[in-house]
Amino acid sequence: MEAQIAAAKVGKYATSESGDTLEMVERPCGGISFVMVDGQRSGKSAKAISNVVARKAINLLSEGVRDGAAARAASDYLYTYRSGKVLATLNILSVDLLSKTMVVVRNNPTPLILIQDGRIEVLDDPVDPVGIRRQIQPSIKEIPLAPGLAAVVYTDGLTYAGDRRGKRMDVVGCVQDLLAEEAPNPERWANHLLKTAIKLDEGRPVDDISILVLAILPRNNDESRTLKVRMPL
Amino acid sequence: MEAQIAAAKVGKYATSESGDTLEMVERPCGGISFVMVDGQRSGKSAKAISNVVARKAINLLSEGVRDGAAARAASDYLYTYRSGKVLATLNILSVDLLSKTMVVVRNNPTPLILIQDGRIEVLDDPVDPVGIRRQIQPSIKEIPLAPGLAAVVYTDGLTYAGDRRGKRMDVVGCVQDLLAEEAPNPERWANHLLKTAIKLDEGRPVDDISILVLAILPRNNDESRTLKVRMPL
Repeated sequence: MEAQIAAAKVGKYATSESGDTLEMVERPCGGISFVMVDGQRSGKSAKAISNVVARKAINLLSEGVRDGAAARAASDYLYTYRSGKVLATLNILSVDLLSKTMVVVRNNPTPLILIQDGRIEVLDDPVDPVGIRRQIQPSIKEIPLAPGLAAVVYTDGLTYAGDRRGKRMDVVGCVQDLLAEEAPNPERWANHLLKTAIKLDEGRPVDDISILVLAILPRNNDESRTLKVRMPL
Repeated sequence: MEAQIAAAKVGKYATSESGDTLEMVERPCGGISFVMVDGQRSGKSAKAISNVVARKAINLLSEGVRDGAAARAASDYLYTYRSGKVLATLNILSVDLLSKTMVVVRNNPTPLILIQDGRIEVLDDPVDPVGIRRQIQPSIKEIPLAPGLAAVVYTDGLTYAGDRRGKRMDVVGCVQDLLAEEAPNPERWANHLLKTAIKLDEGRPVDDISILVLAILPRNNDESRTLKVRMPL
């Protein structure tokens, strides 16, 4: 098997920077983790919040701390640091080679899409964002790694796309259409979802948007790990 | 302008994991940093060393610590942690939006290739690896961001490719050929360099190999940031 992961990210129109933070880290016991955080408000203040939360979670994951504990710690840390006055949404998506599972952590009221055996499941049980009180519980799901397993994780900006024109984006419908066409293809799917959203917003995103797509696929012979990043300056 | 970065990485043949660690982190004041560490020996023990060094550097960079200070701290940390008995090579490659420069930090005796205005420069001044004594100095270079600027950074495994058959890889020559063909293309170049090395080793790399290629290119209209990762499981 191999894991393919792609992310696409854009800032709210006419803000200097996206308030979302997306970071990646290798797991010391094998595997990889992605942390996606959407800070309250937008622009610089949101970025400062999302950066602090993501950094805390990433640092802990890089030391081998389990995903749920890292999410709890990130929440407590933000609560302490900002006296419970700001919130952020947090998602952690990991490929854990120790337990041979994909681990999905949700502290984000925005739904999350799972694909198993060609079927779509929407995770939308109510959860709290992080930082607003003590005792925040993350929603955690562990699924054995198998070809065809995939996850689509996104910040609420994606669901707000088109809102201004009264034609809100149907994320689940969009993923259903993609899945009807082809097996999960993280790079194509992430870019397609982002492009669709930007089009609905007529080129001017009404909110920061971040999308992360992970798929477990049959492995070709290639033993190498690869990474590719593009960043407008 | 936009920055494009690609990495390709493979472990020594018949070892469970690569002893190299490559991590990426967003800079809190804008930009992105990549840390590449090659731990002494190979396999699990090398991985433990490279992971510790990379994690220390990444954590500091994520807090806004400057590249040179992060390299010094990572060295002192390894020295203290392992009593100066193990070494690692360290490279940090950053796009710093605050100073509008590309920052290149070298604590790796293996050369590093810079490209400016279509000309290749090889950085090979003598430097110490990290962890072996106090007072390790990194070699630091800051170059203003401009289209056409590029860097090719790699661990010594790339230069050892083909050694077994007495036909060692000519990395600089290979990059010269690539540059004669096209403007810097991180994804294609990183993959080409890795494939050439693996071919010279007849499919069985004699050492861990990691390659990182960064290029500053003219920007197209696309405002989005993207990321793509592939990991064999």
